[in-house]
Amino acid sequence: MTRTPAHLIDLTCSALDELRAQTPLVQCLTNSVVTGFTANVLLALGAAPAMVDLPGEAGQFAHAASGVLVNLGTPTREQRPAMLEAAAEARRAGTPWVLDPVAIGSLPVRTALSRELCDLGPDIVRGNASEVLVAAGAGVGGRGVDSVADVETALVPAAELALRTGGVVAVSGPVDAVTDGRRTVRISNGTPLLTRVTGGGCALGAVMAAFASVDEDRWATTVAACLVYTVAAGMAAESAPGPGSFSVLFLDALAAIGPDDLARRAMLS
Amino acid sequence: MTRTPAHLIDLTCSALDELRAQTPLVQCLTNSVVTGFTANVLLALGAAPAMVDLPGEAGQFAHAASGVLVNLGTPTREQRPAMLEAAAEARRAGTPWVLDPVAIGSLPVRTALSRELCDLGPDIVRGNASEVLVAAGAGVGGRGVDSVADVETALVPAAELALRTGGVVAVSGPVDAVTDGRRTVRISNGTPLLTRVTGGGCALGAVMAAFASVDEDRWATTVAACLVYTVAAGMAAESAPGPGSFSVLFLDALAAIGPDDLARRAMLS
Amino acid sequence: MTRTPAHLIDLTCSALDELRAQTPLVQCLTNSVVTGFTANVLLALGAAPAMVDLPGEAGQFAHAASGVLVNLGTPTREQRPAMLEAAAEARRAGTPWVLDPVAIGSLPVRTALSRELCDLGPDIVRGNASEVLVAAGAGVGGRGVDSVADVETALVPAAELALRTGGVVAVSGPVDAVTDGRRTVRISNGTPLLTRVTGGGCALGAVMAAFASVDEDRWATTVAACLVYTVAAGMAAESAPGPGSFSVLFLDALAAIGPDDLARRAMLS
Repeated sequence: MTRTPAHLIDLTCSALDELRAQTPLVQCLTNSVVTGFTANVLLALGAAPAMVDLPGEAGQFAHAASGVLVNLGTPTREQRPAMLEAAAEARRAGTPWVLDPVAIGSLPVRTALSRELCDLGPDIVRGNASEVLVAAGAGVGGRGVDSVADVETALVPAAELALRTGGVVAVSGPVDAVTDGRRTVRISNGTPLLTRVTGGGCALGAVMAAFASVDEDRWATTVAACLVYTVAAGMAAESAPGPGSFSVLFLDALAAIGPDDLARRAMLS
Repeated sequence: MTRTPAHLIDLTCSALDELRAQTPLVQCLTNSVVTGFTANVLLALGAAPAMVDLPGEAGQFAHAASGVLVNLGTPTREQRPAMLEAAAEARRAGTPWVLDPVAIGSLPVRTALSRELCDLGPDIVRGNASEVLVAAGAGVGGRGVDSVADVETALVPAAELALRTGGVVAVSGPVDAVTDGRRTVRISNGTPLLTRVTGGGCALGAVMAAFASVDEDRWATTVAACLVYTVAAGMAAESAPGPGSFSVLFLDALAAIGPDDLARRAMLS
Repeated sequence: MTRTPAHLIDLTCSALDELRAQTPLVQCLTNSVVTGFTANVLLALGAAPAMVDLPGEAGQFAHAASGVLVNLGTPTREQRPAMLEAAAEARRAGTPWVLDPVAIGSLPVRTALSRELCDLGPDIVRGNASEVLVAAGAGVGGRGVDSVADVETALVPAAELALRTGGVVAVSGPVDAVTDGRRTVRISNGTPLLTRVTGGGCALGAVMAAFASVDEDRWATTVAACLVYTVAAGMAAESAPGPGSFSVLFLDALAAIGPDDLARRAMLS
């Protein structure tokens, strides 16, 4: 069922209420650069982060968790089997899990790992356009962690990838797009300041895992995650004189954001 | 000797002065989520953090350090022997060391490691009520890194654990309790905002290691650490519109806090 | 060619413009305490950080990167071969690379590693006076990550080290000194608040790697990096009530700093 923007905003408000009522436990297997920021984003929003990423613990924890994030920013030798363990057990237990294939393309370790993880059917794949193109088998990668492709170029491959994984694919950029292969929506609330703070994209993957736990419609909850995240970023950007202040005000905005902010600011199409 | 609240506040003021005069060198073997925040908390307070957590270096460093923190949030394969090495050498050298058994209970790697470390006689064990109950052999664990038990329930097991380790046990929560098995005090200065910032508990363990180096009475310095930490948090919470601002103002408050703040705000019983 | 302070300020302004125009891709193999802060410093300034530190990826990435930082704060077993790989490939490809030998001296793992890396000819070595003295074979090390020697004492050994590596050596402290063995300049813009925030020194190494990519004169770009960094710190310190606020305002200042700030505030001799 396609939903109009107004329906999606209503659903986002409900999902945000649910999230704050349930405090979903979000397991993050993520990179060393953004662990602290990711945890703070989840806490500000009302979720409960837990960075359980050891082999022998990660799979067990994925059973109990409300959602799981697997982010390939700096996948250490010890994290790699833990990531596969967590993804496999999440799948078995029905715990929604998100794959963020950071900087895949020419770098061999993460690119091979991303392929293995994709075969485990991530509920959501989140990346920039270059990363999504590589995951879809249609590109060679970006420049470091940055995209060299634009979001529109990635839309058809993203939809094909979604049909292949049976999940949702979210492409982040100046405009964010979320597709499940049949339904696609664009969100235009991003701010360039999100790209001047490390973890701006990575923490969004964790937020998607948190939202995925509150409703069965993965596409809709992924849209909700993008919307809450980027509207809060827009609120913060209005009064931030620079990237340091923005990061602080963004956490405050994630804690404060409510239905009125979403209704007034959401830009969906 | 039991001390009255007024004595404890005086002692806390002296310990804070001593700490700032001595700049204790605090070795932290801690989790990847909170390393930066923990170091910033120690620096703001006036201590000197050093995150030396490699096997072959950690034990040697524990000799020279003023205090050591061993935190089990994300104990990697390489950190685990380094933690045992640091704890054993700290014990040998008489360097006070703190164990923070994050999320022990059902997770097998950290739970086994915590048991080994407890046998090395930590000067201070700090945890939430669920973690302290597990360490005391009286509970099955919390929900992720959060407690599902309350502080009062953990007090008798905490006192028993303190008698067994020969050290101090601190239970963190809405009210903090510190016991050495004979003396117990409660501190009611906490703010919920400390639970909306990652590392709110973990950094307190590092602060306890810093304070432990300035006076022989471990129970009293642990009370001092809790008091300085939570009073500073209360000062920050008064003007923080959200968790992002709180985190920043908390560091400012740790650098600014003085005897007047402690005398006016401390809530001990 | 020796340059007057006025020439160096002009060159710094041009280098900053170039850096912002080119968005250099800076590969950081750095310690777990400061990864997030380092990335945020680079992003605020206008560079693009990428923390690629896995064996099998680090060398390949060093070919494509604009500059590389190797920081020995917490060199894990997996990072160590990656650091050697990145340094060797950077050298082969002509990518400038910076060595920050954190806390070398008595700690055996990092001290041996630092020696191996020095033999690979770092374009820039950055450290406090104690670290530079050890790297130059003229000292035994500091207290944890802090120096026990002063900058002036380290100047002659620093110059000798520069002649031996064929690169530049920067000594950080209350006054910063930069030498290539023939030319030496002192920068007096530092603020004590930089020592109250973790990563204050470590992130400067990354900034040096970013600046090294915009001009062939390594000595001049290293001076430019120090100058931009410490002038921005001075701007932030003016309105920061404590170390938490300072850290935020410092990132804002790095994004805002321009030629006028440099001309008005630079203190070179």
